[in-house]
Amino acid sequence: MSPPNTSETLRWVGDAEGYLVLIDQARLPMELVELECRDAQTVWEAIRELKVRGAPAIGLAAAYGVCLGLQSMRDRDAAAFHARLQDVTDFLASSRPTAVNLFWALERMKTVVDRHRHERSAARLHDALFTEARFLHDEDRATCHAIGRHGADRLPDGAGVLTHCNAGGLAASEYGTALSVLFTAQDQGKRLHVFVDETRPLLQGARLTAWELVRRRLPATLICDSMAAQVMREGRVQVVITGADRIAANGDTANKIGTYSVAVLAHAHQIPFYVAAPCSTFDLSLAGGDGIPIEQRAPEEITHGFGRQTAPDGIQVYNPAFDVTPARYITGIITERGVIAPVTADNVARLVADRQAP
Amino acid sequence: MSPPNTSETLRWVGDAEGYLVLIDQARLPMELVELECRDAQTVWEAIRELKVRGAPAIGLAAAYGVCLGLQSMRDRDAAAFHARLQDVTDFLASSRPTAVNLFWALERMKTVVDRHRHERSAARLHDALFTEARFLHDEDRATCHAIGRHGADRLPDGAGVLTHCNAGGLAASEYGTALSVLFTAQDQGKRLHVFVDETRPLLQGARLTAWELVRRRLPATLICDSMAAQVMREGRVQVVITGADRIAANGDTANKIGTYSVAVLAHAHQIPFYVAAPCSTFDLSLAGGDGIPIEQRAPEEITHGFGRQTAPDGIQVYNPAFDVTPARYITGIITERGVIAPVTADNVARLVADRQAP
Repeated sequence: MSPPNTSETLRWVGDAEGYLVLIDQARLPMELVELECRDAQTVWEAIRELKVRGAPAIGLAAAYGVCLGLQSMRDRDAAAFHARLQDVTDFLASSRPTAVNLFWALERMKTVVDRHRHERSAARLHDALFTEARFLHDEDRATCHAIGRHGADRLPDGAGVLTHCNAGGLAASEYGTALSVLFTAQDQGKRLHVFVDETRPLLQGARLTAWELVRRRLPATLICDSMAAQVMREGRVQVVITGADRIAANGDTANKIGTYSVAVLAHAHQIPFYVAAPCSTFDLSLAGGDGIPIEQRAPEEITHGFGRQTAPDGIQVYNPAFDVTPARYITGIITERGVIAPVTADNVARLVADRQAP
Repeated sequence: MSPPNTSETLRWVGDAEGYLVLIDQARLPMELVELECRDAQTVWEAIRELKVRGAPAIGLAAAYGVCLGLQSMRDRDAAAFHARLQDVTDFLASSRPTAVNLFWALERMKTVVDRHRHERSAARLHDALFTEARFLHDEDRATCHAIGRHGADRLPDGAGVLTHCNAGGLAASEYGTALSVLFTAQDQGKRLHVFVDETRPLLQGARLTAWELVRRRLPATLICDSMAAQVMREGRVQVVITGADRIAANGDTANKIGTYSVAVLAHAHQIPFYVAAPCSTFDLSLAGGDGIPIEQRAPEEITHGFGRQTAPDGIQVYNPAFDVTPARYITGIITERGVIAPVTADNVARLVADRQAP
């Protein structure tokens, strides 16, 4: 029996002329507020202000945002529709310039219209866009569940599992990626206990992962990031699982800052460390992790993290958003097609190579 | 030339009938406010509410608190004086029941009066207490400077140095312990760059260490605890130094939660990891670190860390105040008598054995 609550981070209401509803992640965990998006502008703001976050969720929001941005064009001619499509996709692409999944999803949407380039009815073009957005959403749902099934085998009954940041249903569809492995194992009747790194500076672990786990009644304990080593040393953790933002051809994995730390600590305590991510997360154009650019974020996330200044004026701050975990620290990468283990360029290529580009 | 500002965490004003002035550490870094303590009650509250913190500083505050608590007894008879001494020391001991240095300092104060047990003048007994408090303070100052001198040799010119929590002048006298090593090297003209772990949950790194470093114009960068591994991987750190709360006979060291994590990460990156602490921090009654009890603190420090709730109701929380770093991860322990390296029970005994108990 599945627990009662899933967290549907985004859903579409109605037909092609309907609207998008998002969980406002910026207001979690204290308030569960849904945000209705009836135009592309609202979607743009939601992405920009981290009301929707998580690579797959951003991509889906953008795809639906394209549908919203073109609803008013259903009665116009095809040329006007095409022109507007370009404007809307350019606009949405500017919401979070570093989000790879955003561009990927927008590209998928444009490709659909390209395939219908002889279509004269704007309404039918719009229907095709809407169908593609729903397909992307269904596909992401299926991908997340497949990740869960492949990964659940790696969790022994009774395991303590440590996770970092949020790679759950809020970041993707239904079960998410890393949390899908946990939720699937839970559905299989396995008893688990999850340790959640709070994930400074933005506390996605404390705010979002903890919220998902409480809702699903999966026993979970929140810790500060600095406590992970101690919890491992005490023998409370048998497996570590995180998500990924981008994976190079050799398996080097960029993910939320702190992931590399957890991977090194897991290695030192001989605890298997898994990454869970869809094949679309691989960037085979990068041979290794050194090629992955690391976004630097505002110092205020650290010095004023909670609305109050907690560090003196004049102190310098280093605030990388991501780090890169070398493949040698990764026991396996759990994808919708199976688990890549050991993590080598050959094994990555074997599973992923035909899945690149829309 | 020494930089202009030192941070005198506590100072006594006047003679035996004077008063104690503390920096209110709870209001740092936003306000530098001094708190005048004219009775033992105010000292008790300052310790209880973490206005004064750091093992040596707590001990000194308590010693001066004994002086304050007995000022009104200078005109009374010796018997009344002795009775009040017991009351005052019992009272102060209740301010932070787990602080070993507190009991150590109170014991030292009582021992002084014991040594003068034939003294009939309460004023002279009180003078003896005051002399002892000043002696403890001078001794701590000298200890901190000696730690700095022994440790500074370990810092190459141009080194990046990572530290965790606050083991500076706020926690002890003048230069502190771990930070004394940095300040002394700075005085010697070495160029350093310090990376400061913010030190969740209570942010002693962000609030206190960053404040001390900015005041002394020692170039420093604040990071989240989860970023230490990344900063090490980037080659920015050549040495790690932390303080200690308690050290077992084999060198296993209890310190602020997150220290063990930093030690394991330093080891994985082949970076030397030093502990700086006075010999009084050793507890030779404990063979190893397993015997050190780990205080569990309130969940709200994590879930409501900054005045705002940042985790959902219903989540469990694990909040150990300390962790224990096994001696094998410690390159050396820097004391006022020299550096213990390699860290073995024999080397600890050789340096420390005759320094135990008042």
